[in-house]
Amino acid sequence: MLKDFETPKKEDKAQINAGIKELQAKLLGQQQLLMKAKLPVIVLIEGWAAAGKGSLIKELISELDPRFYNVVSPKILPENAERYPFLFPYMSAIPVNGKVTFMDSGWMENVVRKYLKREITKDEYRRRIRQVNEFERQLRDGGYIVLKIFLHIAKQEQYDRLYELAENPATEWRVNPEDLWQHNEYKRFMEAYDDFMEKTGDTAAWHILDGNSRKTAIRDALKLLVQRVDRGIKEGRYDGMTSEEEFPLKEMPLLSEVDLSPSIDDDEYKKELKKLQSRLSELHNIVYRKKIPVILCYEGWDAAGKGGNIRRLTYALDPRGFDVHPIASPLPHELNRHYLWRFWTKLPRTGHICIFDRTWYGRVMVERLEGFCSDREWHRAYHEINEFERMLTDWGAVVLKFWIHIDRNVQLARFTDRENTPEKQWKITDEDWRNREKWDDYEVAVNEMLQNTSTKNAPWHIIESNDKKYARIKTLRLIVKALEKACSAKLALPTHNGGVSPLSIRALVR
Amino acid sequence: MLKDFETPKKEDKAQINAGIKELQAKLLGQQQLLMKAKLPVIVLIEGWAAAGKGSLIKELISELDPRFYNVVSPKILPENAERYPFLFPYMSAIPVNGKVTFMDSGWMENVVRKYLKREITKDEYRRRIRQVNEFERQLRDGGYIVLKIFLHIAKQEQYDRLYELAENPATEWRVNPEDLWQHNEYKRFMEAYDDFMEKTGDTAAWHILDGNSRKTAIRDALKLLVQRVDRGIKEGRYDGMTSEEEFPLKEMPLLSEVDLSPSIDDDEYKKELKKLQSRLSELHNIVYRKKIPVILCYEGWDAAGKGGNIRRLTYALDPRGFDVHPIASPLPHELNRHYLWRFWTKLPRTGHICIFDRTWYGRVMVERLEGFCSDREWHRAYHEINEFERMLTDWGAVVLKFWIHIDRNVQLARFTDRENTPEKQWKITDEDWRNREKWDDYEVAVNEMLQNTSTKNAPWHIIESNDKKYARIKTLRLIVKALEKACSAKLALPTHNGGVSPLSIRALVR
Repeated sequence: MLKDFETPKKEDKAQINAGIKELQAKLLGQQQLLMKAKLPVIVLIEGWAAAGKGSLIKELISELDPRFYNVVSPKILPENAERYPFLFPYMSAIPVNGKVTFMDSGWMENVVRKYLKREITKDEYRRRIRQVNEFERQLRDGGYIVLKIFLHIAKQEQYDRLYELAENPATEWRVNPEDLWQHNEYKRFMEAYDDFMEKTGDTAAWHILDGNSRKTAIRDALKLLVQRVDRGIKEGRYDGMTSEEEFPLKEMPLLSEVDLSPSIDDDEYKKELKKLQSRLSELHNIVYRKKIPVILCYEGWDAAGKGGNIRRLTYALDPRGFDVHPIASPLPHELNRHYLWRFWTKLPRTGHICIFDRTWYGRVMVERLEGFCSDREWHRAYHEINEFERMLTDWGAVVLKFWIHIDRNVQLARFTDRENTPEKQWKITDEDWRNREKWDDYEVAVNEMLQNTSTKNAPWHIIESNDKKYARIKTLRLIVKALEKACSAKLALPTHNGGVSPLSIRALVR
Repeated sequence: MLKDFETPKKEDKAQINAGIKELQAKLLGQQQLLMKAKLPVIVLIEGWAAAGKGSLIKELISELDPRFYNVVSPKILPENAERYPFLFPYMSAIPVNGKVTFMDSGWMENVVRKYLKREITKDEYRRRIRQVNEFERQLRDGGYIVLKIFLHIAKQEQYDRLYELAENPATEWRVNPEDLWQHNEYKRFMEAYDDFMEKTGDTAAWHILDGNSRKTAIRDALKLLVQRVDRGIKEGRYDGMTSEEEFPLKEMPLLSEVDLSPSIDDDEYKKELKKLQSRLSELHNIVYRKKIPVILCYEGWDAAGKGGNIRRLTYALDPRGFDVHPIASPLPHELNRHYLWRFWTKLPRTGHICIFDRTWYGRVMVERLEGFCSDREWHRAYHEINEFERMLTDWGAVVLKFWIHIDRNVQLARFTDRENTPEKQWKITDEDWRNREKWDDYEVAVNEMLQNTSTKNAPWHIIESNDKKYARIKTLRLIVKALEKACSAKLALPTHNGGVSPLSIRALVR
């Protein structure tokens, strides 16, 4: 705890310098071992303003090859970070296997500062603490080494440093009102840091370093890093299985129990389609203005009709306000990161709609069945995905998940049709036939997925799609209903842009 | 020209609708052909506010598979786009081979609007016109199909549409002051659009469509797209060689003429290194505050000492203000785009320093020698790179290019040392030995590169690196000199952040 922290006794300067050199050399040697072991490392440096985080990082990287690390400073992250979940910038910045990301302050500073500024409520603070713990645990379980350091300086030391910076015309600009505010509120900050560290030390421990003495801090940080990497290399890549939390689930039928006979006649289809699309179009406007993020997830059998279903949906939307993400096999740079990274980085900003044509559920379907991940990996994915989706709905997102369902015979008929229709031939590949042979295995996996991940906040919807038109109408209805609910629950519309009214346009035009 | 535009006569509605259906089906059929031919397509839709650009794009994509296209709306691009070259968002959004990007207004609206608002000068306007032409030509030469459409509506029609939007409470917010301003300034805008189109029609022609009739516009846009794609498929991927412009070049010696004997003694090295690093550290602050972008390019022989040279540089910099980009072979998603794309997207924001450890010059070295690109491709790269770098310096960037030079014997000695030193073995691979065998070929290519791309605005510096310490000092001196020049030439420093002064901090602290 910061409040119990005692400044250690002075050490011999030359000895410290020698220690630094030695540790830097060791770290340099570890580079290759990390690459070989494919271990990714995240070093989070938190601490007081003017504690020397920047200079500390400079020393940590000074001997390393630039191919080996990158430095992230959330202070210089995109101005629109506020339009994504608060962990978004940190997740986006995680390293590929074998590399190190140094973060110059991160999720701790983010949460504590917002809380002290009263930009988030006590409840939201608690939620974020939970999300941080989930985030760190998921990274750890996924093989990431996470080292967390807090650089501590006393109030008087902070005063002296800020004063020195402010007094020098060349560095004066570095002292900003936020720093002064922190200094003024030193005690409140200390309590808040302590609280945060106390609640987030379970997966990755916090290390408080004495920043009053710069050199000692550098030496101690290097030592921690070298030791942590050493341990990581010895233990090998972690493949964890740790959380036991149970999510409240919605009861789901087995696929075999689903009645696939529902259909719709052509006239009703056309009428309903038009009505729903027009309503959706209105709702898209409201969603955009109320800044509600919307995430629509499509999964289903090959040839179930996902594409056509999505097209009926997107046709109702303003192309400037949505994205469709077709999910294929991960690319090398995706494969070399946590499997959820490629989905995190595709999240919509607030007010936007994103549609996933296949999703993170690939983990518990194709990746499970084809052996692209370990048993522990897909087992723990159920839980990780539930956490991921809870994070999304906590953020305020509307999350809808559709399983587009058909039976084997319908699939065969559609495959055959595709093979016999020249313009459709590209849609059918050998892989589709191979997957079809594994129908039974997939059915087991899909059933498990539906049973394990149909949470109350982000339930699955099974869409009967033997009749594609019926499926489209059902999907659109669910979307319209969910958006209506979200739009009515949220705050009032912001006032319109620039105060334009028929009167003012009339006045302007000559 | 817009001013000569005559509204075409009315057509039969049913006939237009049938035409649209037919063309949409044709476009759908072209999808696969584009994929097979690996042809990337950019469809730029410009036009008046309320001309119907969004709905037009909606119809263009309505039958397409989402895997096949994406829609980009520069209006919703990152808020920090202003901190990059103005073409940055458009270059970032180019599609991979075989796919289509639809842009809902783009570089034309960007330039014209800024010019009419007097946010850019007449000179800057001319420069941007030139850059647009270079951009479009480079894309065309690199195999991209670029289709440019301007959606035209008459002033009265714009009035009616804006009025209708503003009158309806549900759509009122869509009319913003910018639209009203445009409407008020309709004539000025028309002249500016005309001027822009007149000056940028050479590589990719402008197509003005009558937006007064929505359906006709959709039909005509579809027709243009289908025809253009058809032509592209028939002609095959373009591999152009068109520009003849000569850049003012700095005279460069041949590598064989370079005297590699310069060296520095240890004491002087230490003294100079310290002095230069300390100066660089100060300059980094100024660069950051004056928002000068800095791009440092390292090329050189294997084992020439690039890494160590870069480390001496970065050690002087604040890790929050620079990035090192080690450039290896392009990844699949990079290989499937214009070869400059992966460098464009790594450009620093203003005020930041980025260091390329190897660069875009790979095109005229390894890619040329290993046959990774066609002869025409590397031949035209000299010119394209000169244009690219001129764009960077026009933007205000400091661009420095270093060829870190050693002779064959020194390379051999360093290779052997690497092989015999366990901690260095990772640095030496079979590929390095293979490249070494091609020294003569590389020397020819490097000489040609130095002769063709040492422009006055972004000249090459040959760094004698048989003595690595000498090389480091020389590089640092060049960087310091260039930054000093840039910092003194630029506008005065902005006033510091938040008006902090020793007095105010004293007042705040109890």
